[in-house]
Amino acid sequence: MKDMLIAPSILSADFARLGEEVDAVLAAGADVVHFDVMDNHYVPNLTIGPMVCKALRNYGVTAPIDVHLMVSPVDQMIQDFAKAGATYISFHPEASLHVDRSLQLIRDAGCHAGLVLNPGTSLECLEYVLDKVDLILVMSVNPGFGGQKFIPTALKKLQQVRRLIDDSGRDIRLEVDGGVTVDNIAEIAAAGADMFVAGSAIFNSDSYQQTISKMRQQLQTVA
Amino acid sequence: MKDMLIAPSILSADFARLGEEVDAVLAAGADVVHFDVMDNHYVPNLTIGPMVCKALRNYGVTAPIDVHLMVSPVDQMIQDFAKAGATYISFHPEASLHVDRSLQLIRDAGCHAGLVLNPGTSLECLEYVLDKVDLILVMSVNPGFGGQKFIPTALKKLQQVRRLIDDSGRDIRLEVDGGVTVDNIAEIAAAGADMFVAGSAIFNSDSYQQTISKMRQQLQTVA
Amino acid sequence: MKDMLIAPSILSADFARLGEEVDAVLAAGADVVHFDVMDNHYVPNLTIGPMVCKALRNYGVTAPIDVHLMVSPVDQMIQDFAKAGATYISFHPEASLHVDRSLQLIRDAGCHAGLVLNPGTSLECLEYVLDKVDLILVMSVNPGFGGQKFIPTALKKLQQVRRLIDDSGRDIRLEVDGGVTVDNIAEIAAAGADMFVAGSAIFNSDSYQQTISKMRQQLQTVA
Amino acid sequence: MKDMLIAPSILSADFARLGEEVDAVLAAGADVVHFDVMDNHYVPNLTIGPMVCKALRNYGVTAPIDVHLMVSPVDQMIQDFAKAGATYISFHPEASLHVDRSLQLIRDAGCHAGLVLNPGTSLECLEYVLDKVDLILVMSVNPGFGGQKFIPTALKKLQQVRRLIDDSGRDIRLEVDGGVTVDNIAEIAAAGADMFVAGSAIFNSDSYQQTISKMRQQLQTVA
Amino acid sequence: MKDMLIAPSILSADFARLGEEVDAVLAAGADVVHFDVMDNHYVPNLTIGPMVCKALRNYGVTAPIDVHLMVSPVDQMIQDFAKAGATYISFHPEASLHVDRSLQLIRDAGCHAGLVLNPGTSLECLEYVLDKVDLILVMSVNPGFGGQKFIPTALKKLQQVRRLIDDSGRDIRLEVDGGVTVDNIAEIAAAGADMFVAGSAIFNSDSYQQTISKMRQQLQTVA
Amino acid sequence: MKDMLIAPSILSADFARLGEEVDAVLAAGADVVHFDVMDNHYVPNLTIGPMVCKALRNYGVTAPIDVHLMVSPVDQMIQDFAKAGATYISFHPEASLHVDRSLQLIRDAGCHAGLVLNPGTSLECLEYVLDKVDLILVMSVNPGFGGQKFIPTALKKLQQVRRLIDDSGRDIRLEVDGGVTVDNIAEIAAAGADMFVAGSAIFNSDSYQQTISKMRQQLQTVA
Repeated sequence: MKDMLIAPSILSADFARLGEEVDAVLAAGADVVHFDVMDNHYVPNLTIGPMVCKALRNYGVTAPIDVHLMVSPVDQMIQDFAKAGATYISFHPEASLHVDRSLQLIRDAGCHAGLVLNPGTSLECLEYVLDKVDLILVMSVNPGFGGQKFIPTALKKLQQVRRLIDDSGRDIRLEVDGGVTVDNIAEIAAAGADMFVAGSAIFNSDSYQQTISKMRQQLQTVA
Repeated sequence: MKDMLIAPSILSADFARLGEEVDAVLAAGADVVHFDVMDNHYVPNLTIGPMVCKALRNYGVTAPIDVHLMVSPVDQMIQDFAKAGATYISFHPEASLHVDRSLQLIRDAGCHAGLVLNPGTSLECLEYVLDKVDLILVMSVNPGFGGQKFIPTALKKLQQVRRLIDDSGRDIRLEVDGGVTVDNIAEIAAAGADMFVAGSAIFNSDSYQQTISKMRQQLQTVA
Repeated sequence: MKDMLIAPSILSADFARLGEEVDAVLAAGADVVHFDVMDNHYVPNLTIGPMVCKALRNYGVTAPIDVHLMVSPVDQMIQDFAKAGATYISFHPEASLHVDRSLQLIRDAGCHAGLVLNPGTSLECLEYVLDKVDLILVMSVNPGFGGQKFIPTALKKLQQVRRLIDDSGRDIRLEVDGGVTVDNIAEIAAAGADMFVAGSAIFNSDSYQQTISKMRQQLQTVA
Repeated sequence: MKDMLIAPSILSADFARLGEEVDAVLAAGADVVHFDVMDNHYVPNLTIGPMVCKALRNYGVTAPIDVHLMVSPVDQMIQDFAKAGATYISFHPEASLHVDRSLQLIRDAGCHAGLVLNPGTSLECLEYVLDKVDLILVMSVNPGFGGQKFIPTALKKLQQVRRLIDDSGRDIRLEVDGGVTVDNIAEIAAAGADMFVAGSAIFNSDSYQQTISKMRQQLQTVA
Repeated sequence: MKDMLIAPSILSADFARLGEEVDAVLAAGADVVHFDVMDNHYVPNLTIGPMVCKALRNYGVTAPIDVHLMVSPVDQMIQDFAKAGATYISFHPEASLHVDRSLQLIRDAGCHAGLVLNPGTSLECLEYVLDKVDLILVMSVNPGFGGQKFIPTALKKLQQVRRLIDDSGRDIRLEVDGGVTVDNIAEIAAAGADMFVAGSAIFNSDSYQQTISKMRQQLQTVA
Repeated sequence: MKDMLIAPSILSADFARLGEEVDAVLAAGADVVHFDVMDNHYVPNLTIGPMVCKALRNYGVTAPIDVHLMVSPVDQMIQDFAKAGATYISFHPEASLHVDRSLQLIRDAGCHAGLVLNPGTSLECLEYVLDKVDLILVMSVNPGFGGQKFIPTALKKLQQVRRLIDDSGRDIRLEVDGGVTVDNIAEIAAAGADMFVAGSAIFNSDSYQQTISKMRQQLQTVA
């Protein structure tokens, strides 16, 4: 069975001590560093760009860095993040006029390519590019806005994307982002996800290690 | 005589240890933390947003934070950075349809308001808003692009803006950004600047303290 | 059986005597005031904004006001119309980057939320947000352009959306807008619509009352 | 001496009884109907478009209608308002890529052409088009936002534009909009204005007639 | 059986001798002149506009001219190319806010209307406008970028669109563009295409006539 | 004295025989090939791009090619035209957010850099970049629209720019474009221009050679 990946979003980390925070969360058992990029155009917020990604690599972070682009357009950012050390680069199909080409750009740069589905986005955008996709990220909240809870219809979408992936026979990660907690992670995994973004649930908890352990325990109940 | 302020740009700092870097550069004698915000639209790069500013305040930084917005539009970012603890907020007049109102927004939020002049921008944009401006930033390189040297016509512009400020009788900072080094800071100060952004000249030097000291020595030759 | 609602579009009313016109058409038997908002960007025309809506409420109009936003972006207009007294607020999914969130904004403001389907738009956009939708508006002409006739493929679309709604078990209005007349309203109702926008068919007729009565008679042949 | 024109802004009128309101304010002594058009892009608000202008003409209004376009782009709206019966059409130079041509469009359509200066806009934009301009509108508040007071630097700008007009020897109206009241209208006229927009100062007063009379009395103290 | 049309793209022709080139390729057996229009906004390149189309008509070209608009927005270009003598005009559904109306504009101007599907675009956009479409163009490379090979998933898409067309009973051309050569044209025709764009495969070959002949031979193996 | 350059605009040439046309007009005495690039965004028209420029070079044209970019943004087009063999590249300051840098891009690519002033544009944009400019193009009609006559205020602007150039002591061409004919070229030269774009005046004349000769005769009356 495929392993389950836990990907803390550094948007909830302390940016004044980011290297230390990332070290801590990886030492606590996280698998992947989730990196949320907002440009104040695709979403109404501006966060962090390629320089911060590169700083983490220079600091010594060797874990996969999973870049979620909430930007439009995407092609320049794709190239900048590939140079800055990204492992995965994902974007929203609505944010690129030429989705097939943007996916190809990511792969040509040596990274894994992902598409992100907003809560209201349907699956048609996947049909003709599934062979160029290494990761599908299902948003279970609206990106770029704080304080939201897991949107229940995301479970149905995870099940449907899981079926698409299994039918394709391809090795594609199914990631979920938004409102994931110790309490609902098992249900979400049961719906088909195998990569879990969690921000405040981890970084605002008393112990990163305990929270991640509890998440893993929950995930084992599904497998 | 007005004091001279040295404002290291944290764009050249190590983002993995930003709090520590800022502490170090302030301990080394810097007066102001310069904070460059790019949105991949007004300039072809994306850097850091309000969350990073807030993290510095939470970390304990009490020095003035001088936010240079290389973004368009500006009104939302102004409000976000005011909440995140900015002291100065500056923007480019070309980036706002309603310059007078954007300046007013900054002041209503309790911050000092600045306008930034690109290398090719003339001074007409200042005429009717000088009474709402606390800082004028003259760019001596094109913003958003790396590896540029100080553009010589910036000296003429500094002299002209200095005259405008002195004629107005108002208390307005005259800041300069781009290619400032120990070697040219005296000449730049002689042209009228009293606030100096320096990025790699400080953060890439062997000793922040020695570099800033040398800059101050140079500045004293002008006064 | 669900009641059929007739919603005269005030775009065909006399804007110099709007309160009077709205009173007259409601007295003549209309159920809902349909309010078409164009911004000269999403469509090549500019009509009326929130102030006009608020004026109707101040004038004493208590009937539901059904706001159709032909604008992009939508989030600011949603909030402005909610404050101005709108009952329903509908927008085009192509006009919002974050459809789920925009629907949520409408509901959080205490209004009923709608999505509008252009003649060429397919139904995929409805799939994951049906639980946040109170109204679906099928355009039977292209919005923002005058002098068009009912597009026949809209009948097929009404049937398909009707099925979606019935399958969902939810209480969702199915509205139609464009080229609705006394002559075709029965056929349109038979296809599944239960809310009918009519502009010139009512306001350009000799008697609002007689026209609305004839429409109701036609609708009764369907039920 | 040139006559002074009072131009009530119908943005402060009751949109449910607009014809009646316009009749009343003209009967009370107003000279011109001022018509503010906002598109939610050039300014963050949406008001009224060409249809409302045409309705006033159909209602029987024969007074000049003075259309202030706070929209971008402007060329389509210029043509639509010319057809709808506008007398003056003004736009912001920042809102058109081809200012000379947009002015020409207005004149070719048989209307008087105006340029509008935002509080922060300098006079350079007038230099090469003064021979195609029939009206210059100096904004004494930022357009598109409510609740602002007269910005004092507008007086200096009025004086400077007055000099430009007088030096040109051409017959150009100098209009002012924003925070004009009975209390400051004399000072504003003394600075050079000869056309005065007033919104709430008139429409929110107990008597349109008395308010306009008081304004005229104040204006006579200047002449 | 339907005839197969070969449509050389003049983007690969010699623009200094365009009339001569078009004559030569038509004399060599081509059926249609394919005309690629790029605007540096919908795609990152700028090619040729309506004046060049008109020049070909003035030169005496009577063969059908098949205009592929890689521009956004499309409505003005549609009207300009119709006046310039285009036979077919196709656009991308993502490039028009009002697809149904843009198709109608093409037909009202007396031309055949087409929709173009990018490699990643699914077929939903066709459902409600199939009755207004005379041509569907399946892109087998990403438009606007050079040096790409035929994308294999285009074969699946051609088969699916072929089925849609046949089920509709309507007379709709199925065109393919990108990486078509003598070697793969038979396979592409077998998937359902009946109109073949080829650029460098024809114009860079030693003999236009021989290349087109070989393509026809290959096509006969399919019929 | 500086030589006077005649620069026929190929927008009025026959695009079906462009090489031949350019040869003919150069043989008839023209000095420079003027190349008008429109993108349907900065102006409402789309003309010809880099491929056509490159085709002229491949055809054997060795005369200077003077590219006037009526596009926005400009940086990509600058690089594409430099590769395609342009000699001069000019753009409108309103079309670039970073004018100084765009000028630098042109020069770094080995071309001569120009700025274009629309009829309504004032001279402030030149002040701080005059040392990076090799050519200033004064538009005497609005770019992108046909059938316009020479705008008289362009004479005043030519005189003012001439003074700026002479005061600078730099070697800068002063070009004029729009409505230049045999009848007014002497007056225009007397105002300070030394490079003359003419389109239909040359290409629609009976003899390119005679027309250019007459222009030169007129120009000699000025020298």
